[in-house]
Amino acid sequence: MLTDVTAFAPATVANVGIGFDILGHTVEAVGDRVRLRRIDEPVVRIRAITGIAGDLPVEPARNTAGRAVQAMHAALALDYGFEMDIEKGIPLGSGLGGSAASAVAAVVAANALLDEPLPRLQLLKFAMQGEIVASGSAHVDNIAPCLFGGLTLTVGIDHPRVKQIPVPPSLRCVLAHPHMYLGTREARAILKTDISRSDFVWASANLAGFISGCYSNDLDMIRESFNDVIIEPQRHSLIPGFKDVQRGAMSAGALGCSISGAGPTVFAWAETQYAEAVRGAMVAAFAAHGLQSDDWISGMESYGARVVKA
Amino acid sequence: MLTDVTAFAPATVANVGIGFDILGHTVEAVGDRVRLRRIDEPVVRIRAITGIAGDLPVEPARNTAGRAVQAMHAALALDYGFEMDIEKGIPLGSGLGGSAASAVAAVVAANALLDEPLPRLQLLKFAMQGEIVASGSAHVDNIAPCLFGGLTLTVGIDHPRVKQIPVPPSLRCVLAHPHMYLGTREARAILKTDISRSDFVWASANLAGFISGCYSNDLDMIRESFNDVIIEPQRHSLIPGFKDVQRGAMSAGALGCSISGAGPTVFAWAETQYAEAVRGAMVAAFAAHGLQSDDWISGMESYGARVVKA
Repeated sequence: MLTDVTAFAPATVANVGIGFDILGHTVEAVGDRVRLRRIDEPVVRIRAITGIAGDLPVEPARNTAGRAVQAMHAALALDYGFEMDIEKGIPLGSGLGGSAASAVAAVVAANALLDEPLPRLQLLKFAMQGEIVASGSAHVDNIAPCLFGGLTLTVGIDHPRVKQIPVPPSLRCVLAHPHMYLGTREARAILKTDISRSDFVWASANLAGFISGCYSNDLDMIRESFNDVIIEPQRHSLIPGFKDVQRGAMSAGALGCSISGAGPTVFAWAETQYAEAVRGAMVAAFAAHGLQSDDWISGMESYGARVVKA
Repeated sequence: MLTDVTAFAPATVANVGIGFDILGHTVEAVGDRVRLRRIDEPVVRIRAITGIAGDLPVEPARNTAGRAVQAMHAALALDYGFEMDIEKGIPLGSGLGGSAASAVAAVVAANALLDEPLPRLQLLKFAMQGEIVASGSAHVDNIAPCLFGGLTLTVGIDHPRVKQIPVPPSLRCVLAHPHMYLGTREARAILKTDISRSDFVWASANLAGFISGCYSNDLDMIRESFNDVIIEPQRHSLIPGFKDVQRGAMSAGALGCSISGAGPTVFAWAETQYAEAVRGAMVAAFAAHGLQSDDWISGMESYGARVVKA
């Protein structure tokens, strides 16, 4: 029986520009690791938080990973407990799904330590409890791809259905994370509560075109549909230089470029041969606005969160 | 050189419940026919309208088929003309894309009479000119499937992109057309101009799930996504008994049931083995509300509008 495992969970790009609150995809190049030990005492505790840690709370109920494992622990009425070490690889408040990754890595690790591990879909609701600590509401658009891998659609909250959508294999995700903090709550608070019917139709057409393009490997359709007419126009002013970063990415050959999750990270999709140029253009545009940035080029194919050491 | 051709154009279900103004699919079981003769005089004229004709105008500029061919005739600056006979098979104001079918059949017939026929995508804009006569605005969600066949997504108006989406081959469309008239203008006029962000997210999830389900032959995903939370709740009261018809269809095994186009025709998707029961339930529910109805069970695969006699 396993008593000590480490799980890795990848960063995720939520919304993917055209799928607000429903789409997300993994970024294999960066992620969080959570090590869990099974302990006799029936409690959940956090021993240490390392890596790009910021000032994350170590009190389990206030920590996304701690809260997620607590939810699982309570639901299963376990008579043993877990002690965890969290190693943050995803910058806080970056829009790369860091809170989801910690929560998912923790429940995947905990699941491996159960006498009878649960099916992956059942882990979703525990990880969501962790996400509530971070964002104030239950969202699965980071958690579902983080858990399942690749590009995923999640439909529904109470009984979420998860659908994995194929990404054309010639594509890469390019990310530029400017060194600034942007809170998810703040980025949600500025959104209007209503949408015009004409924007709704336009957004629907783009969403449908994007998904059709992914299924049919139709890069032209993906490019022409890769345009968020609802959220990006309301949010981009929170990110200095966003429009220049986007223009730079598109000029360098990206299929599309928008805000990752609630920002400030900006992501682009590009064919492999353009990815380096797109990265250079995005980083340069942020620099011109006085912002240094971390950057990654990553595949989007992934097995999702997984035990990496047992 | 051809001088006398007849084209058939199928009926269409626009919106398909979850794709307002962007999705539509063909119904092969019913359609309009337009016969065109090339004439020396450089004009477009309508000789006769037969079939389920109602009181359609024979003045070309006020007739959808006439206006569509006029638009084509003007754009190509032809030095000869066309005389047409229109045979209506699609009831007027039924929500089955009758005006689109007449316009599409007419331009497909006219195209066959050109010295150098145009690619099909170029016919779209001429047929749209006809649709404007009927509905007061340019919509392509009936025209695109009618012209191309099957389930189609149309993105954009000025330079529309058309994408054909596969429909699982085990599915049939069941239609019940109650004997009442409902104008497209009226059915559009009652729609609110704004949508809440939460409904937008819900509708997006359903649209994305539906399209993913079609591509991946995932009937469960289609069933769970087949729920129009935006338009149907605003429109269904225009159709007496709609809720009972929908409940009847779903109880009989339909995957989904909603309003065809602007109504009053109600359509359902069902696996072949349930189609007869779904039809019976829908017709009985309308009858219980004092409405006789025409009904069809139809495949959705189609080559779209085509010359049937030359």
